[in-house]
Amino acid sequence: MSQRRYAIIGTGAIGGYYGACLQRSGLEVHFLLRSDYRLVKEQGLIIDSCQGNFTLPVVKAYSDPTEIPPCDVVIIALKATQNHILSQILPQVVTENSVVLLLQNGLGAEEKIAQIVNNPIVGGLCFICANKVAAGQIVHLDYGSVKIAEYSPHQQPCGVTDTLRAIAQDCQQAGIKIETSEDLLQTRWEKLAWNIPFNGLSALLEATTAEIMADAGLRALAETLAWEVAEGAKSSNRAISAEYITALMKRTEKMKPYHTSMKLDRDAKRPLEVEAIFGNPLRLAKAKGISLPHIEMLYQQLKFLDRKIQNSP
Amino acid sequence: MSQRRYAIIGTGAIGGYYGACLQRSGLEVHFLLRSDYRLVKEQGLIIDSCQGNFTLPVVKAYSDPTEIPPCDVVIIALKATQNHILSQILPQVVTENSVVLLLQNGLGAEEKIAQIVNNPIVGGLCFICANKVAAGQIVHLDYGSVKIAEYSPHQQPCGVTDTLRAIAQDCQQAGIKIETSEDLLQTRWEKLAWNIPFNGLSALLEATTAEIMADAGLRALAETLAWEVAEGAKSSNRAISAEYITALMKRTEKMKPYHTSMKLDRDAKRPLEVEAIFGNPLRLAKAKGISLPHIEMLYQQLKFLDRKIQNSP
Repeated sequence: MSQRRYAIIGTGAIGGYYGACLQRSGLEVHFLLRSDYRLVKEQGLIIDSCQGNFTLPVVKAYSDPTEIPPCDVVIIALKATQNHILSQILPQVVTENSVVLLLQNGLGAEEKIAQIVNNPIVGGLCFICANKVAAGQIVHLDYGSVKIAEYSPHQQPCGVTDTLRAIAQDCQQAGIKIETSEDLLQTRWEKLAWNIPFNGLSALLEATTAEIMADAGLRALAETLAWEVAEGAKSSNRAISAEYITALMKRTEKMKPYHTSMKLDRDAKRPLEVEAIFGNPLRLAKAKGISLPHIEMLYQQLKFLDRKIQNSP
Repeated sequence: MSQRRYAIIGTGAIGGYYGACLQRSGLEVHFLLRSDYRLVKEQGLIIDSCQGNFTLPVVKAYSDPTEIPPCDVVIIALKATQNHILSQILPQVVTENSVVLLLQNGLGAEEKIAQIVNNPIVGGLCFICANKVAAGQIVHLDYGSVKIAEYSPHQQPCGVTDTLRAIAQDCQQAGIKIETSEDLLQTRWEKLAWNIPFNGLSALLEATTAEIMADAGLRALAETLAWEVAEGAKSSNRAISAEYITALMKRTEKMKPYHTSMKLDRDAKRPLEVEAIFGNPLRLAKAKGISLPHIEMLYQQLKFLDRKIQNSP
């Protein structure tokens, strides 16, 4: 059994679910919370999971990041729209030997974290359908795997490092399906090939993935968007193959009707992760002279929708 | 005073408002209704207009088209989504000397009418913000002008014909601001340069024209869409100038916050005029090898939205 200690920054659906799995496997996990702090400190975490329900009546809950003891792995599981608070929190939680693991979609966050702390940074992409339904109560509906890769400031592939192996080992022991990748930026662009069409269209049109796939015109539009992501990946000198996109569409067709995270954010009137998933990739591509007209159109529509949601009473 | 007799097929916001104006000026107007028939027959029409309220306590209302006496001008003021009922109704209303006046946005309806009846057809584009708020009660919020042009089967400009002049004279006497155009197809494409961006985005994003114009990204998208309409017009050998689009954007900026007809249709869960305004122009352009990617994307989004609305309980 590893002795690694984990901190979870942001105990929503993602942080709560994976943190609870790690604690259940015997690891020491420290949960940072804001609005749910008091309730979770008193009642712990309840996980209603398609892979088996479980409860953790006692968890180490914190509202003050300075009270968290030194941790080996600091997992950031905030929404990307909350990353502006990291410059306050991270220096208080991260110690010399910590690894930062960022569980978020989109592009551009590792660069920001590297400006705040000097530690190794691992990016993680979660393939999970989970939702926080109440304070300390998470419903895990489907999937659950994570793909991790290490960040390098020059955006070069880092290979499968010892850092990745250690985290992967802990996750496996915790029953989390985990995959390591040699190339973070490749992995992030590949994830965008799904997130951009399906998060975007599902949030905009209040549709499930199944409704998108059942509509011939919308399905073709989703595929066009995925192809534009492949075009955008070239701006990072990464290639997404035709086979990858074909497989992605086939996989989505077989999914159960699925509310994407951005659709859930819309439903809950939370800010949408528009800049991480759309704005940053578009700006990267634009800087290399690559225009992505369908993604740009969806971005403008979602930005408007996001502002409308935030300004609604 | 002209002796022309008018029939109104479809007494919604458009048919009710213009028909009431014509009757108020002393013309004989026959209104065909469906669900509102009984109430309008009993109570007449109430027009709450920004240009002065008026009521017509008695109108000639019909539920059976065969009871309408021969009319000189048969105005079709149905939603384009209702045009499938014209093959039933028109032969019962139109007589040898009737002119058909179609008050609808979009492309393709005159061709269908020409297959049903052999009469002269005039197309009319309404620049009006009006809404039927209850049976026989119409609120006219802003604008109100109509632009008419005569249809030719070969889609050539017909010039300003006597038919147009006669209708224009009646409208002027009824206080309706009316303009005649020599070229119906040019006029229809020009109207699309406004309807496609503003009806489309306002219905999709539940936004007023003012909200679209105040959002820099969405305003730019609206202008991109208007430019694509100009591109599409080339497929009909018509040209929309840069000056026209610049003026259109400036005019829209000065408008009061405006719910477009398609936004009102969405709010009322009525079918959206997606094929007339988007599908038909796209197909015309495609047949000439002209691709309109932003309009195509908006079309797919609206088609999905339309089906979703129609299938909702």
